[in-house]
Amino acid sequence: MNLNIALLPGDGIGPEVLAQAVKCLQAVEETFNHNFIYKEALVGAIAIDKKGSPLPDNTLNLCKESDAVLFGAIGDPKYDNNPNATVRPEQGLLKLRKALGLYTNIRPVKVFPTLIENSPLKKEIISGTDFTIYRELTGGIYFGEKKINKEGTIASDLCEYSEKEISRIAHLAFKAAKNRRNKLTLVDKANVLESSRLWRKVVAKIGESYPEVKLEYLFVDNAAMQIILNPKQFDVILTENMFGDIISDEGSVIGGSIGLLASASIGDENALFEPIHGSYPQAKGKDIANPIASILSAAMLLEHFKLFEEAMAVREAVDKSLKKGVVTPDLETKSQYGTNQVGDFIAENIVDSE
Amino acid sequence: MNLNIALLPGDGIGPEVLAQAVKCLQAVEETFNHNFIYKEALVGAIAIDKKGSPLPDNTLNLCKESDAVLFGAIGDPKYDNNPNATVRPEQGLLKLRKALGLYTNIRPVKVFPTLIENSPLKKEIISGTDFTIYRELTGGIYFGEKKINKEGTIASDLCEYSEKEISRIAHLAFKAAKNRRNKLTLVDKANVLESSRLWRKVVAKIGESYPEVKLEYLFVDNAAMQIILNPKQFDVILTENMFGDIISDEGSVIGGSIGLLASASIGDENALFEPIHGSYPQAKGKDIANPIASILSAAMLLEHFKLFEEAMAVREAVDKSLKKGVVTPDLETKSQYGTNQVGDFIAENIVDSE
Ligand SMILES: [Mg+2]
Ligand SMILES: [Mg+2]
Repeated sequence: MNLNIALLPGDGIGPEVLAQAVKCLQAVEETFNHNFIYKEALVGAIAIDKKGSPLPDNTLNLCKESDAVLFGAIGDPKYDNNPNATVRPEQGLLKLRKALGLYTNIRPVKVFPTLIENSPLKKEIISGTDFTIYRELTGGIYFGEKKINKEGTIASDLCEYSEKEISRIAHLAFKAAKNRRNKLTLVDKANVLESSRLWRKVVAKIGESYPEVKLEYLFVDNAAMQIILNPKQFDVILTENMFGDIISDEGSVIGGSIGLLASASIGDENALFEPIHGSYPQAKGKDIANPIASILSAAMLLEHFKLFEEAMAVREAVDKSLKKGVVTPDLETKSQYGTNQVGDFIAENIVDSE
Repeated sequence: MNLNIALLPGDGIGPEVLAQAVKCLQAVEETFNHNFIYKEALVGAIAIDKKGSPLPDNTLNLCKESDAVLFGAIGDPKYDNNPNATVRPEQGLLKLRKALGLYTNIRPVKVFPTLIENSPLKKEIISGTDFTIYRELTGGIYFGEKKINKEGTIASDLCEYSEKEISRIAHLAFKAAKNRRNKLTLVDKANVLESSRLWRKVVAKIGESYPEVKLEYLFVDNAAMQIILNPKQFDVILTENMFGDIISDEGSVIGGSIGLLASASIGDENALFEPIHGSYPQAKGKDIANPIASILSAAMLLEHFKLFEEAMAVREAVDKSLKKGVVTPDLETKSQYGTNQVGDFIAENIVDSE
């Protein structure tokens, strides 16, 4: 397969970890006979510094012309600590998602057996957990009309959803469930919210076209409990933007390996893949950053293009690094392996897995 | 002290557990020389059956005339399983909160050392956890304008807050923090929502009048993580209605003893105290329901009227029942004690504690 991949390393440890993901994609090219073309562009704080904008035009154009975007990380303390900063690195990612029409955020929550001791939850609760959250990313209250009266004493935000916004992500979630364990849980607050009732109506209707998928409903407050009490019950969770923000961050910590989690943001024309961790500026350039989340985001990219065998080869090489203890010091304090060595080990094992 | 207490036993196990709470209040009267007058009224499914309304007028009037309401539980499967039911037992509680102006919901999250093994979280994470959530209860998106277009394809909910709504609960939360460990965490989404920015502005301003209280801010998605990762960090959490719904339900399960948790709903003129558990109809009349949450809601009632020593006597008697294993079978499967015996034991230990 030929793929044009835009590389947006961004800030902090972004470039270092992204370089390891590229190594792994190159190993996949070699092993499975594909041809990926990589083009790099600036985003985030470094783009502000060099071009005056967190998302320069040529970066956006490159992304639009590419088949997929592989993203590093974004953010720099010099902007966080400056309340007067009018341009912020994070705006680069938000603008990019919007410009590329990335309306679905996919967040897998999976427990790595070798890291299960790191979980704040008991082993018997968390063991075997493997679900994926489909979060609507461009609608709802985060993007609804905001108002404040002129006295500054009454403020409001509007949560609005249309059938079309719900339907396009619902189809993606049902398809994902079909390829997994055939269970879809819609998280909403339909006992109180009109927008949630629309979600329930539209999703129930679409569900009729996926008779093999069992559709369940869960109120968001109950979901917040169930993710802790019995995370194994879930397969695919579908939810609106803000509930997805809360639930997916809650889900990200239960496995105890937040540094290993990847995500995808999907639209009809484009897709972006990134680790869920931040730019971790304290670790920049020290060859200690964990590249696994970035490498797993490359695996999600491969799956997006239905290169399932290739993605599996990446995942198996990652598992091998975890099992053999070829990991960065965040996972094993006494580890002697750096970012580059871990990336090399995983890439080499992709080639050798054949 | 003289107190008029309205008793609303409600449905399912409500009457049985409430009876144990009353026993304990009577023990407090005897021991500390108070005079409480109890008057009972119908609410919930039983009120629909007997009076045609989940909140009959005489029930509401009794509550309005009383100093406080002690509530059992509400809900009956014959209404849950009937999608055509136009009147539902739960409406009784929602109407009552609204009619009494109960704008603050208080949910303590505390770990009982004897029950710590029941927690889904690891002991070292949960041990020592002791915080209280102040949730705004009558505003925000649950009560905001709801719309649906006539084609039924676009739906919306409005989240609106006024300075006044924020300010009155903020004062209660700051006062609570002053009487605890002097830390208040405002949970919001001020990086995105206009209403959250108003919360932050109003709470920051009020905080100037409570200089001894350390005020911190936490985005709701991060709060959902922190409650699992490090629940010990919290003292008092203050938040708006929907965030409070999610966060307090999440908090209720981390201690592993959801059956023991009580709550208060406070207004300027009245206050209501209830266990957070439901009516558990399967257990009705079997003398197996755990009365401790109801008894602890009576302790919250005493604290509300500044009867701190009295409340402490109740809490110590509860701790004794837990330590001695005088508990219902939900806590110890082999237990021979019933609802009434546990209530008797706790009430007797209030009297004897002097
Ligand atoms: Mg988030
Ligand atoms: Mg709730």
